[in-house]
Amino acid sequence: MPRIPGCRVVVESDTAANAALSGYPTSDVGAIGAQCDLGLVVGGDGTMLGIGRQLARHGVPLIGINQGRLGFITDIPLDQYRNVLPPMLAGEYVEDERTLMQACVMRDGQCVFEAHAMNDVVVNRGATSGMVELRVEVDGHFVANQRADGLIVATPTGSTAYALSAGGPMLHPSNPGWVLVPIAPHTLSNRPLVLPDAVEIAIELVSGRDASANFDMQSLASLVHGDRILVRRSQHKVRFLHPKGWTYFDTLRRKLHWNEG
Amino acid sequence: MPRIPGCRVVVESDTAANAALSGYPTSDVGAIGAQCDLGLVVGGDGTMLGIGRQLARHGVPLIGINQGRLGFITDIPLDQYRNVLPPMLAGEYVEDERTLMQACVMRDGQCVFEAHAMNDVVVNRGATSGMVELRVEVDGHFVANQRADGLIVATPTGSTAYALSAGGPMLHPSNPGWVLVPIAPHTLSNRPLVLPDAVEIAIELVSGRDASANFDMQSLASLVHGDRILVRRSQHKVRFLHPKGWTYFDTLRRKLHWNEG
Amino acid sequence: MPRIPGCRVVVESDTAANAALSGYPTSDVGAIGAQCDLGLVVGGDGTMLGIGRQLARHGVPLIGINQGRLGFITDIPLDQYRNVLPPMLAGEYVEDERTLMQACVMRDGQCVFEAHAMNDVVVNRGATSGMVELRVEVDGHFVANQRADGLIVATPTGSTAYALSAGGPMLHPSNPGWVLVPIAPHTLSNRPLVLPDAVEIAIELVSGRDASANFDMQSLASLVHGDRILVRRSQHKVRFLHPKGWTYFDTLRRKLHWNEG
Amino acid sequence: MPRIPGCRVVVESDTAANAALSGYPTSDVGAIGAQCDLGLVVGGDGTMLGIGRQLARHGVPLIGINQGRLGFITDIPLDQYRNVLPPMLAGEYVEDERTLMQACVMRDGQCVFEAHAMNDVVVNRGATSGMVELRVEVDGHFVANQRADGLIVATPTGSTAYALSAGGPMLHPSNPGWVLVPIAPHTLSNRPLVLPDAVEIAIELVSGRDASANFDMQSLASLVHGDRILVRRSQHKVRFLHPKGWTYFDTLRRKLHWNEG
Repeated sequence: MPRIPGCRVVVESDTAANAALSGYPTSDVGAIGAQCDLGLVVGGDGTMLGIGRQLARHGVPLIGINQGRLGFITDIPLDQYRNVLPPMLAGEYVEDERTLMQACVMRDGQCVFEAHAMNDVVVNRGATSGMVELRVEVDGHFVANQRADGLIVATPTGSTAYALSAGGPMLHPSNPGWVLVPIAPHTLSNRPLVLPDAVEIAIELVSGRDASANFDMQSLASLVHGDRILVRRSQHKVRFLHPKGWTYFDTLRRKLHWNEG
Repeated sequence: MPRIPGCRVVVESDTAANAALSGYPTSDVGAIGAQCDLGLVVGGDGTMLGIGRQLARHGVPLIGINQGRLGFITDIPLDQYRNVLPPMLAGEYVEDERTLMQACVMRDGQCVFEAHAMNDVVVNRGATSGMVELRVEVDGHFVANQRADGLIVATPTGSTAYALSAGGPMLHPSNPGWVLVPIAPHTLSNRPLVLPDAVEIAIELVSGRDASANFDMQSLASLVHGDRILVRRSQHKVRFLHPKGWTYFDTLRRKLHWNEG
Repeated sequence: MPRIPGCRVVVESDTAANAALSGYPTSDVGAIGAQCDLGLVVGGDGTMLGIGRQLARHGVPLIGINQGRLGFITDIPLDQYRNVLPPMLAGEYVEDERTLMQACVMRDGQCVFEAHAMNDVVVNRGATSGMVELRVEVDGHFVANQRADGLIVATPTGSTAYALSAGGPMLHPSNPGWVLVPIAPHTLSNRPLVLPDAVEIAIELVSGRDASANFDMQSLASLVHGDRILVRRSQHKVRFLHPKGWTYFDTLRRKLHWNEG
Repeated sequence: MPRIPGCRVVVESDTAANAALSGYPTSDVGAIGAQCDLGLVVGGDGTMLGIGRQLARHGVPLIGINQGRLGFITDIPLDQYRNVLPPMLAGEYVEDERTLMQACVMRDGQCVFEAHAMNDVVVNRGATSGMVELRVEVDGHFVANQRADGLIVATPTGSTAYALSAGGPMLHPSNPGWVLVPIAPHTLSNRPLVLPDAVEIAIELVSGRDASANFDMQSLASLVHGDRILVRRSQHKVRFLHPKGWTYFDTLRRKLHWNEG
C-alpha cells in the first residue's frame, strides 16, 4: 500500500490482521466512520455494501477497488488504482448517492429483528414448503394478497441484483423509488411495482410454513403468521465515489453484456 | 344532464352537436380550459387522456365518468354519477397528479413533429420489416444500441398500458419516473429501465425501414436514419380527481384481477 | 352416493372412514387399482394427481369431480355429476393421457430418494441461503451450470402449475415434452427450455446450502454437493377422462381468465 | 475452392456470377437439389434457412459454413472448413433434422399467399395502428381471441430467433412441437403455448388495420378482416449436418453467453 501524500491512512483492524498489514494504525469500522474522510474498500460488491451499511450514519464516502471481476459499484480494478486514485483524491470524481432501507420484523407489537439493507428486503417461503401468502400494504393502504415463492423489496442498488433475476426492472440510482418484485407469483398479473421511496411498506405473513425475512441476506428464519415486515427509507444515504466520466449506463452495459455482438 | 346548484355548465361544442345536447352554452376544449374550474369527461381512458393533454396547460382538474368498463383513470360509473359527484364538488376528493411528456422528432436539426403524451412515446419498426436499431442516450450519456421491435418510454400513467404488455413494471403515479421498455429485444438482458423523469431521453434511429414515432398514438411514420426522438417532462401536469377513499392500489387490483380466487 | 346401474362401487378405505360412508365395500388405493375399471376422484387437482401417481401402473382411468373451484384436470362440478357421469360411463368421453416422471436422488452411486411426479421435479435452494449452482445434463450431454433459486422440470401437466409462475410456457398434454424452467436465474438468458420427454435429465448440486429435491412436493431436504437428481419418463401414463366436448383449450381459457373483458 | 477428392462440385449460378467463381459447372438451386448429394452453404443462418426451404423437398442434407459470427445452425467457421469438412464427407457427422411449416393466407376460401417457413409464421399489427385481435384455433378447436402486437408460431428452429425475443421458450429440435408466442399481449396471462406439431393452427384477423402475415419474413401486407392464416407441418424436413461431437446444447451456451463468468 503506497503512501498517499497529504493523507493519513488507517487500516480496518480485522483486515490488517488477516492480511498481515503492519506499519499503519488500525481501527474498527465504526471508528473509521467517525474519524475518516474517505473509505477505500478492496473487494467485491458484497463487501462494499456491507461497509456501506455500517458507515452510512457517518456519511463517509466510499471508493471500491475490485480484486476480481468488476461489480456494479466496485469499478476500479486493483491493478489500476495507482493511476485512478490520485485524481479522485484531488477532487476529480463523480458522486453517486444511494438510498438505504431500514427494515424490521414486528411480532405482537414488538420489533424482533431489525437491520439496514442496501440491496433488498426479501420475504421467502420455506425450502420444501409451498407458497407463502403475503398481505402487502403501502402507507396503510391495502395493495394485494400475494401468493408466491416470496416478495422482494429492492432499492435502485438492489434492482440489478436478486430483483433482476426475479424479473424486476432496473432502477436508476437517481430515481427515488423502491421496486416490489414477486418471486414466481401464482397470479400472472402480479407484475413488479415501482413505488416512491418515501412510503412505508408492510408485508404480513398470512400463511406458509418456515418463511423467512432476509435484509441484505441478514436473515430471520421461522416467521410466524401475523408477523409484519416493515420497510422504510433510512435517513442516511451511502455515498460512492467513481472516477470522473463514470456513468451508471456504462456499468449496466458492461455488466449485462449489452452491445457485445 | 342535471342542473348542479351553484355551477355553470358549459358543454364541449362537438359533443353537444354529436349528442344533440341543447340548452347549455358550448365552447371548444381550449376555451373550456381557459374558463372552467373543472372538467367532467364522459368516456374511457383514451378520451380522458386526450382531454388531459389538451387541458394540461390550463391546470383544470378532471373527473372521469365511464360509460363502459371502468378504466385506470376513469373510475366513476355513469349510473352512479348523481351520487358520487355532489360530495366531490363540495371538496371531498383525492387529487391525483400525473406527469406529461413533451416529445419531438428532430431531423437535420429541425423539429419535424411535436406532441405531448400522457401514456408513452413509442418508436416502432415497420410492419413487415425486421428489427430497428435504436441508439439511446440519457442527458447526453450513451445508454445502449438496442435492436428490437421498438422501444417504449412510458409515464407512470402509461406504465399500465402498452408498456405493461411489453413486460414493463407498473410505476406508481407518485414516483417521478419514466420507464424504458424494449419491445421484443434481441439482447435478452435488455430489461426495462426506470429513470428519473427530470432527464432528457434521446432515441436515434440507426437502422431499420419504415420505423415510426408514436406519441400517445399520434404518429409520424417513415422515420429516416439519423432522426432523433427527444423526450422530456412537460412543465405542466394533469390533475385527476377521484372520489374520497380512492387509492391507486384499488384500481390496480380491480383492473389486473388480483385476488379474484 | 347413488347406485349406478351395472356398476359395482368400491370406496377407498380412508375416505369411507373419514366420510362415514357405509354400505359399500372398501379397499385401499392399491387394491382399487388392481380391481377396478374406473376411478372417481372427488377433490381438487392435488388429490387427483396423488391418486394418479398411485394408480398409474394399473392403467385405471380417472374422472375428477370437484367440490370447489374447478381445476385444470378436475372439471366436473360436484353438483352436476349426476347428469355428467352417466353418458361418460356409457362411453361418451374424451381421453386425456398424461405422462409421468420417475425421479431419484443419486448419492455416492446409490438412489437415496425415489418418487413419481405428475407435475414437476424441483431442485430448490435453502430458504435463507443464496443461490444454488446446478449442473444440468441431458442424455449425458452438458447443458449448462445454472445459478438460480432453483430449477423446475415440469411435465405438460405441471407446466400450468409452479413452472408457469416461474415464467415457463404451457405445454399441451399431447406434446411429448418436459420443460426446464430456471427460478430467478442469475444469467438473464437462461430461458425455459422444452425437451423431448424421451431424454434422461441429470441435475447435479454443485454448490449451495440446504438445497432440496421436491418431486410433486415429496421432498428430500439437505442435499449434499455432488448429489444428482435423475429424471426420466415413467413407462406408465395416467389416463383422465373428460365429458364429451372437453378440450384442453377451454380449460386454459377458464383457468387463466382469458377473454374476460 | 479446393478440389475434394471423389466429389463433383456444382456452384449455384448466382453465387458463381456474384463471386466471379469460374472453373466449376453451375446450376440453379432447384437443379442442385435434384442432382446433388450434399449442399454446402456459405453464409449466415438466414442464408441457410433460405436454402433449406428451397431444398427441403429434395431431402439434400446441408452443411453451413459461416463467414462471420457463428450462428445457431451455421457452425463451421470459414477459416476451418479445410479441416472440418473431410471427416464429415467421410461420414463422420451428426444429423440434425428440422421441421418445416407450410403456411397460407385464406381469403374468401382461396389461398392468396403461400410459403414455407423454417423459423416462424408471424401475424403483426400495422406500424402505427393499435393492437390486432386474432382468433386462434387448433384443429378446429377455439383457443383464444388474443389482442396483441401480433402472434408468432415458431418451429424449434425459430424458437431461438424472434420468438425468444418475444419471451418464448427454446424448443429442442427433437421435440415435435410448435410454440405460439404472443407479442406484447394485452391479457397478461397469455403466455407462450407449446403444441404438438401435428396440429393445424388457424389464426383469423378479427380486427386491426394494416396487419401483415410474415412467413420467415416473406410478407403479405394489408390483411383484411376475416383472413385466416393456416399453419401446418410440411411433409418435408430439412437435414443439417454438423461435425461429430456437435450438440444443440453447446450451440445454446455459445449463442446465449451462458457460463461466461
